[in-house]
Amino acid sequence: MLSPKIVLITGANRGIGLEFVKQFLLLKSPPKVLFACCRQPDTAKDLKGLATGNPSVHVLKLDVCDQSSIDNAKKFVESKLQGEGLNLLINNAGIIDRTNIYEASREEMAKIYETNAIGPLMVVQSFLPLLKQAARADFSAPMSCNRAAIINISTTLGSISENSSSGYYGYRASKAALNMITTNMSLDLKAEGILATAIHPGWVRTDMGGPDAAIDTVTSVRGVMAVMEKLQGEEGTGKYYAYSGHQIGW
Amino acid sequence: MLSPKIVLITGANRGIGLEFVKQFLLLKSPPKVLFACCRQPDTAKDLKGLATGNPSVHVLKLDVCDQSSIDNAKKFVESKLQGEGLNLLINNAGIIDRTNIYEASREEMAKIYETNAIGPLMVVQSFLPLLKQAARADFSAPMSCNRAAIINISTTLGSISENSSSGYYGYRASKAALNMITTNMSLDLKAEGILATAIHPGWVRTDMGGPDAAIDTVTSVRGVMAVMEKLQGEEGTGKYYAYSGHQIGW
Ligand SMILES: NC(=O)c1ccc[n+]([C@@H]2O[C@H](COP(=O)([O-])OP(=O)(O)OC[C@H]3O[C@@H](n4cnc5c(N)ncnc54)[C@H](OP(=O)(O)O)[C@@H]3O)[C@@H](O)[C@H]2O)c1
Ligand SMILES: NC(=O)c1ccc[n+]([C@@H]2O[C@H](COP(=O)([O-])OP(=O)(O)OC[C@H]3O[C@@H](n4cnc5c(N)ncnc54)[C@H](OP(=O)(O)O)[C@@H]3O)[C@@H](O)[C@H]2O)c1
Repeated sequence: MLSPKIVLITGANRGIGLEFVKQFLLLKSPPKVLFACCRQPDTAKDLKGLATGNPSVHVLKLDVCDQSSIDNAKKFVESKLQGEGLNLLINNAGIIDRTNIYEASREEMAKIYETNAIGPLMVVQSFLPLLKQAARADFSAPMSCNRAAIINISTTLGSISENSSSGYYGYRASKAALNMITTNMSLDLKAEGILATAIHPGWVRTDMGGPDAAIDTVTSVRGVMAVMEKLQGEEGTGKYYAYSGHQIGW
Repeated sequence: MLSPKIVLITGANRGIGLEFVKQFLLLKSPPKVLFACCRQPDTAKDLKGLATGNPSVHVLKLDVCDQSSIDNAKKFVESKLQGEGLNLLINNAGIIDRTNIYEASREEMAKIYETNAIGPLMVVQSFLPLLKQAARADFSAPMSCNRAAIINISTTLGSISENSSSGYYGYRASKAALNMITTNMSLDLKAEGILATAIHPGWVRTDMGGPDAAIDTVTSVRGVMAVMEKLQGEEGTGKYYAYSGHQIGW
């Protein structure tokens, strides 16, 4: 059963990230503390609405491109947890481009990479002591999303082996890079009991996915959470799954 | 037989890039014009030595992180070619890091990506009209490195599926991204007759590879050029080869 005690989600104010918060609260055994991060807590109405009825939800500022905001978020989380660890970190925040080979620009390529690849790495680097803490607290358990895990929200568009349609230069390149970073993390953190896996949430009706996307956020997040639940031990780390449970080629 | 008429190589002042220049000059049918690009022509002694004895070699400034230097190089190449196209573009320039999950920094990650992934894309974007020109000039031939091709110098460290040792966060992520960009280019440019493939040169004794590397630059470049020679038609584009001729998993 998926039941991580302490959870942190980036980009939680809308889209898939917001739906994660909702569905974590609906678990049989919901998180004791859920850190719902976003760039602008002041204007995150839906998220703050959820937090009002649920004292386990903390809305906090975290811009993955702004190191001081990551550091401040880490300090806040640490102060709330008072020695407890972080069980599940979901790197969900992301941006997209729709540029082709003629339009791709230096600046946009760099910004997307900063957000989608460097950002998740820096978030993990910062919160790693808390993930380790959680892994140690449950040291005889196999790796899992309940014990200590990093879930990087990737996309099939990040699959190099399955690339058959091109486009999205910045987005595709950044997510392929994120996939590489995910396998690196899985290798580095296996011995510490921390799992790291990439999950594609499907083509989802959000601001990013657009109104014609195939599924709604409810279906997407249900699928992703079912995948998370099944990730166990060495078999579950360093992988690349779709929300449907199918594995994707890198 | 490998015999591209017009060739451009980035990072040609030392290491593998310099050896490319040497071996192109040794071909049975050497290039009519070889544009050997580097960041600082003034101090590129070895390269300028080669150019002195070989009027086909033009040493020119091209820093892949500096758009104006790419644009100026393009203008220079165009003026030299007077309507002829560019047959072979080798994106060889690259930098590496040796940072682990604790040491990886925002700035270094960004700089490596700019050099190893954005740089090659911007070079291709700029020189694309000349590659198209070459492809058109030989429009009935199958795709090949003689007709019109982009070779992106990648590395096995960019393989996500074969990642078993982690490390090199910035380098690995940037080269996985370059591999994605390579497949994108192959898809975008197939219809125009331009081939795009990634090649791993081996672990080579250069400043980057270090003195303990497995092979010298002569062996590496011989292998890479043998691979280039074999790349033909649809079978040859969008691939990821080692200098040994083996295909690598993405
Ligand atoms: N929708 C799809 O079809 C689809 C498909 C495959 C993968 N994905 C992935 O799923 C994840 C969520 O996507 P979505 O569809 O929910 O997109 P979305 O509706 O556009 O939401 C993106 C979220 O990321 C946040 N964000 C952007 N830049 C940020 C930064 N620098 N720091 C912190 N947060 C930042 C946004 O915050 P603001 O409100 O402040 O902008 C927002 O909360 C992304 O990683 C995306 O690549 C989506
Ligand atoms: N050596 C290996 O074992 C190995 C293994 C796998 C892949 N590779 C790849 O092979 C390629 C060549 O590597 P190498 O071993 O010959 O490395 P190297 O000896 O360190 O040479 C790197 C070359 O890239 C140039 N360069 C760096 N940044 C540049 C920029 N911004 N603009 C233009 N040129 C730039 C350098 O120019 P400066 O002299 O101005 O710095 C130099 O000419 C790289 O793409 C590398 O990733 C090498």
